[in-house]
Amino acid sequence: MARRLFKELERSYGFDEVAIVPGEVTINPEMTSTKMNLGRHSFDAPFIASAMDGAVSPRFAVLMHEMGGLGVLNAEGLYCRYEDPYSVLEEITSMSKAEATQYLQQVYSEPIKEHLIGARVQEIKQSGAVCAVSFTPQNTKRLSPMAVEAGADIVFVQSTVTTARHMSRSYKGLIFSDLINSLKVPVVVGNCVTYNVAIELMETGIEGILVGVGPGAACTTREVTGVGVPQVTATLECAAAREDYFHRTGRYVAVITDGGIRTGGDVCKSIASGADAVMIGTPFAQAEEAPGRGYNWGMANPNPELPRGTRIKVGTKGSLKQIMYGPTSETNGTQNLVGALRVSMGMCGAYTIRDFHKAEMVVAPSIKTEGKFFQMSD
Amino acid sequence: MARRLFKELERSYGFDEVAIVPGEVTINPEMTSTKMNLGRHSFDAPFIASAMDGAVSPRFAVLMHEMGGLGVLNAEGLYCRYEDPYSVLEEITSMSKAEATQYLQQVYSEPIKEHLIGARVQEIKQSGAVCAVSFTPQNTKRLSPMAVEAGADIVFVQSTVTTARHMSRSYKGLIFSDLINSLKVPVVVGNCVTYNVAIELMETGIEGILVGVGPGAACTTREVTGVGVPQVTATLECAAAREDYFHRTGRYVAVITDGGIRTGGDVCKSIASGADAVMIGTPFAQAEEAPGRGYNWGMANPNPELPRGTRIKVGTKGSLKQIMYGPTSETNGTQNLVGALRVSMGMCGAYTIRDFHKAEMVVAPSIKTEGKFFQMSD
Amino acid sequence: MARRLFKELERSYGFDEVAIVPGEVTINPEMTSTKMNLGRHSFDAPFIASAMDGAVSPRFAVLMHEMGGLGVLNAEGLYCRYEDPYSVLEEITSMSKAEATQYLQQVYSEPIKEHLIGARVQEIKQSGAVCAVSFTPQNTKRLSPMAVEAGADIVFVQSTVTTARHMSRSYKGLIFSDLINSLKVPVVVGNCVTYNVAIELMETGIEGILVGVGPGAACTTREVTGVGVPQVTATLECAAAREDYFHRTGRYVAVITDGGIRTGGDVCKSIASGADAVMIGTPFAQAEEAPGRGYNWGMANPNPELPRGTRIKVGTKGSLKQIMYGPTSETNGTQNLVGALRVSMGMCGAYTIRDFHKAEMVVAPSIKTEGKFFQMSD
Amino acid sequence: MARRLFKELERSYGFDEVAIVPGEVTINPEMTSTKMNLGRHSFDAPFIASAMDGAVSPRFAVLMHEMGGLGVLNAEGLYCRYEDPYSVLEEITSMSKAEATQYLQQVYSEPIKEHLIGARVQEIKQSGAVCAVSFTPQNTKRLSPMAVEAGADIVFVQSTVTTARHMSRSYKGLIFSDLINSLKVPVVVGNCVTYNVAIELMETGIEGILVGVGPGAACTTREVTGVGVPQVTATLECAAAREDYFHRTGRYVAVITDGGIRTGGDVCKSIASGADAVMIGTPFAQAEEAPGRGYNWGMANPNPELPRGTRIKVGTKGSLKQIMYGPTSETNGTQNLVGALRVSMGMCGAYTIRDFHKAEMVVAPSIKTEGKFFQMSD
Repeated sequence: MARRLFKELERSYGFDEVAIVPGEVTINPEMTSTKMNLGRHSFDAPFIASAMDGAVSPRFAVLMHEMGGLGVLNAEGLYCRYEDPYSVLEEITSMSKAEATQYLQQVYSEPIKEHLIGARVQEIKQSGAVCAVSFTPQNTKRLSPMAVEAGADIVFVQSTVTTARHMSRSYKGLIFSDLINSLKVPVVVGNCVTYNVAIELMETGIEGILVGVGPGAACTTREVTGVGVPQVTATLECAAAREDYFHRTGRYVAVITDGGIRTGGDVCKSIASGADAVMIGTPFAQAEEAPGRGYNWGMANPNPELPRGTRIKVGTKGSLKQIMYGPTSETNGTQNLVGALRVSMGMCGAYTIRDFHKAEMVVAPSIKTEGKFFQMSD
Repeated sequence: MARRLFKELERSYGFDEVAIVPGEVTINPEMTSTKMNLGRHSFDAPFIASAMDGAVSPRFAVLMHEMGGLGVLNAEGLYCRYEDPYSVLEEITSMSKAEATQYLQQVYSEPIKEHLIGARVQEIKQSGAVCAVSFTPQNTKRLSPMAVEAGADIVFVQSTVTTARHMSRSYKGLIFSDLINSLKVPVVVGNCVTYNVAIELMETGIEGILVGVGPGAACTTREVTGVGVPQVTATLECAAAREDYFHRTGRYVAVITDGGIRTGGDVCKSIASGADAVMIGTPFAQAEEAPGRGYNWGMANPNPELPRGTRIKVGTKGSLKQIMYGPTSETNGTQNLVGALRVSMGMCGAYTIRDFHKAEMVVAPSIKTEGKFFQMSD
Repeated sequence: MARRLFKELERSYGFDEVAIVPGEVTINPEMTSTKMNLGRHSFDAPFIASAMDGAVSPRFAVLMHEMGGLGVLNAEGLYCRYEDPYSVLEEITSMSKAEATQYLQQVYSEPIKEHLIGARVQEIKQSGAVCAVSFTPQNTKRLSPMAVEAGADIVFVQSTVTTARHMSRSYKGLIFSDLINSLKVPVVVGNCVTYNVAIELMETGIEGILVGVGPGAACTTREVTGVGVPQVTATLECAAAREDYFHRTGRYVAVITDGGIRTGGDVCKSIASGADAVMIGTPFAQAEEAPGRGYNWGMANPNPELPRGTRIKVGTKGSLKQIMYGPTSETNGTQNLVGALRVSMGMCGAYTIRDFHKAEMVVAPSIKTEGKFFQMSD
Repeated sequence: MARRLFKELERSYGFDEVAIVPGEVTINPEMTSTKMNLGRHSFDAPFIASAMDGAVSPRFAVLMHEMGGLGVLNAEGLYCRYEDPYSVLEEITSMSKAEATQYLQQVYSEPIKEHLIGARVQEIKQSGAVCAVSFTPQNTKRLSPMAVEAGADIVFVQSTVTTARHMSRSYKGLIFSDLINSLKVPVVVGNCVTYNVAIELMETGIEGILVGVGPGAACTTREVTGVGVPQVTATLECAAAREDYFHRTGRYVAVITDGGIRTGGDVCKSIASGADAVMIGTPFAQAEEAPGRGYNWGMANPNPELPRGTRIKVGTKGSLKQIMYGPTSETNGTQNLVGALRVSMGMCGAYTIRDFHKAEMVVAPSIKTEGKFFQMSD
């Protein structure tokens, strides 16, 4: 007898539950191209550094550009609240953890200085880098024009869950199509995880979509609110939306997996699931050049009722160059991320990111076993 | 060749195996209403404190009312066995664990004093609070009229597994329809986990049903007897029964998930699975105002053959107000439960509990991974 | 594209992956009967103590009978190799673990004394108990007639995997139908796990079948040879065979789940899966009266190439009466096994073991979660 | 509503998720034959020692032959780079782990000495053993003829992922059919995991195929690149290819499961999944006679960007004879591998490896439970 249920639940999958199947033809890694496009901008490496203050300073954004990727500056973070954010960073990274939590709440209460937005954008632009800045939906309408005026090339609009039809009492819902018409630069929006929302957002004219809500079982959003979709399924859904939208309109919107990525393997699985790029924070916060000096913390707007903004020790793993291109002595996939992607593409016979989208995947649960023998792979 | 089996088993799901999918429209949390009704009584917050002596004293029941929820007094607990239960509580919470186990068996052997039932009800009613009291099926017929006479507003009848057709040699099975006719106050009954039992119970005229038998793999009922149904599936089944019963009769019976809830996320998943409210003990026993002073223990009637009544240290986490409404510095979803529910509802575009019942859910197993990178959510 | 595979694999289930669903009617535990039959013998409690030297001595077999169950004496164990097995037991249980492993290999090399088989049987019979003795297939033909002549009531024939058509070079395969014709006492055979083997064994005329090969992932058979079927699926298959055989012939063969049972919950799940009884070793080896004095070890015939016979510390948990009937202060389901079964049957409205066979079960994986809240069950 | 996804994922299975079902007939282990063929060579034991320098020296290859198996010498390893590899081995195994990592990179930078390839082959041939040597695809064309000329009987060509149609810029892709025509000895190629690739490789004329890419969730290939297929599914696919190819052409190509095997149980599962033999490294590196003296490390060609070549302590477990044939005091399935295979075959009534291919298997997840009781198997 089938049980009578109030609703049906479908199975979803996260990174640890899937694997990529090698292809029928293989190619040498150096024959692959990892290029991706975001609006009119092209990037050699499909890696975007998250708009976190511990990861992306103006200087780090320039460095990301030099490495072929993109660093997004949080336009509501410390760099746009303080003339001298570096002494604040110095404080955050030198106090005890308990002090840091309180200090973070305090320093993010400082108002955003509108003139600093332009100043930071110019800092990045002067080095010839593509400049991307991030806003929350509440502040986008008011603040993003200043950034664009100062030369910002790409605007990110980010909240935990973003839909094209947000209802709000306290501020007039941001209308993305209006924003896009007025800004005249590519807009990337997120986060979302479902087909219908992705389609609606694409129809507003955005150039990129960030995928990821409560991706991991241990993630705060999922634990506190129960809301979340594992990243493989979320990416597969949004990529399906991109394909359908592309076939209907001829316009290709970038899908960017954002959140829950911990290793090169996760990067590869994101892209094999249909992503065009990944957005990651911690691996970049672990770079020697990162402003967080071995620490990272959540985005702006700490809410005292549902707190973010705990400082986390992430350590320093090497130069950004090593993290992206090696050489590395780590075997756990946390360095040489571009190299790992190329090797993976090679094993699937994929010359391009678009080819890699065709790679077969299987459900292959991650079972932890204490080896009786020592297990040696390859 | 399909294996030939004695019976078929269907898959069931617990909290850790599912997640809520964000909606196509989102709303601001402050636009949501978390109101729920139980018979003629309305509550701002769908939180019911379990009838456990370490959680709900008469004073705590009043406080729950002030916070918008409901605290259920165990009418067979210490408060109705002792004129001065507070000195007993003092003893329980100040002795060693081993002593406590024995002491609990001893103090719950003291007979229930019938006059104390009325006295405790009046204590609660004098403060203007809605008064709910809980009985076991064996004692309901004899004791519940005294509580109602003294002013009790709602009667809970609770045992591990409750059906409308319990067979017993030692006491005449409680007939719920007779009880309801005679008491003339809303009756809430549990626990149950299946569609047919839920329907039969609803047909007796009850106003609420408690869902949950052996919800977790680590729970005593499941370990000792093998009996149990994970809470998501149990709630989905009982909610299906409520809908069918409602469509047939026009009478809406509240479904209350009771047991196995550990975080705000679990609360949200219960309600998205179709519950109208949740019943929880430990988070309330962790309130500064809780009578258990950082301890909690099982319900009355310790049976020396299959023991309950082990004292568990739960700690003190903050005021009841903080636990229900924040502010909180915890990020694990154990405080600001109402806030978490509102945020979750907002992400699903749900203005009301009934709207939230329509939220999509997915199976999203909880895989424990030791992060190679540090994983930062949102 | 469906993957092309060499063979298909069906899903099987173990104890930790299933749960019993409460029934539509419940009854009081004291109204249940746990009686089971084995040939012409009836037992009040469906518990059989394994033929392990650390669990069942002649004296313990008598005690099991007094408690309503059955203790099976290993007729190839120490009791039938030594005039004074108790001094050997004393040695085994007082030396170091490393010494014990070697000593076990040595003491089980001592030949079986045929006259001792009769003597041990008479020891048990003199107390009026039902006497069951266990042999390996190799020795059954030669040794079992002596046991029966001395008064043994039931003969068990046990090996890791037993089929009705075993092929052997070194001894003429035991033909069960011949054995049964010649012995004229009930014969119980095992172990097996599949429908076809169970049917073939039943057709030889046996009265009981032992179910269980490599039941747990951590069990030696499964780790060393890869062979095994989780116990819920194995019991469901053998119970299906019993039903089909019963409907065809009118003869009811007892199905006994043997191996992998660790708690009262596992006992209940075995019986709800279709077993008529369970065979367990360690819980009985934990009785104060057990000959192993807090230790247990594998069966006879240690093979130096694939060793058994490691001494394991199991501890002493209480009297056999407590283990079977309580009272208990343990809440983990390892004591009061009969009480746990009765409570479980009551929750399913089962008056008899045959009723309990009709209980619904669900797949309900055991997920280990470190509680954020403390989880209180019931 | 079914979720709309970019691609579908099928379920795959690893060793820990399956078990072998005992057969309807059983036979005594000593009646089984574990013979396997590789081209014109026949082996009593289907065990191949991996081409790892810590496992297979020329001397060890001879010993493997004496034990009925096959040891593959890494023709690009230390033995073919150094006149006196033993002093290098001495160094590797006596320094600290950190020093060893660097030292490994250094010693493997030493060029391969072509004359040493012939010398090592002759060392093995002089003892009358079958001689197998392993090359990477890059070097096979140039170096393998020297090995064959010196008397090598079997050539292995191994890389992480091998296809019949590899594309490369830096060296002309190896064409296997040309290689096979010119070498005139059996060629074994790998690794691969899918039906189509296996078919294409078989069509080139190879005699054996190595199965295994990123087999375990914890394996470096899977973590770094996300690529991998669990071994049971990979073996089932390649075995399906072998059957189809065999039915079409009459030529039988050996399927060899390589990687992720930790216990005798895993060996048995590989063969029951359709493998004709297994290739394992660490269990042989644990032999007293192994050149690694209790250590093992990855294959040649350490790449500083994606490193291999970390030295791992594997310990010394006993003589090769004990590891393959016992006697053993280990109960975890890491010794007496041939004995374990025979017992497993006996339980399935399999006289030969081909019979064992017909054994039924089930999905039987490995759930770790801390036993409340002690669990005693058999």
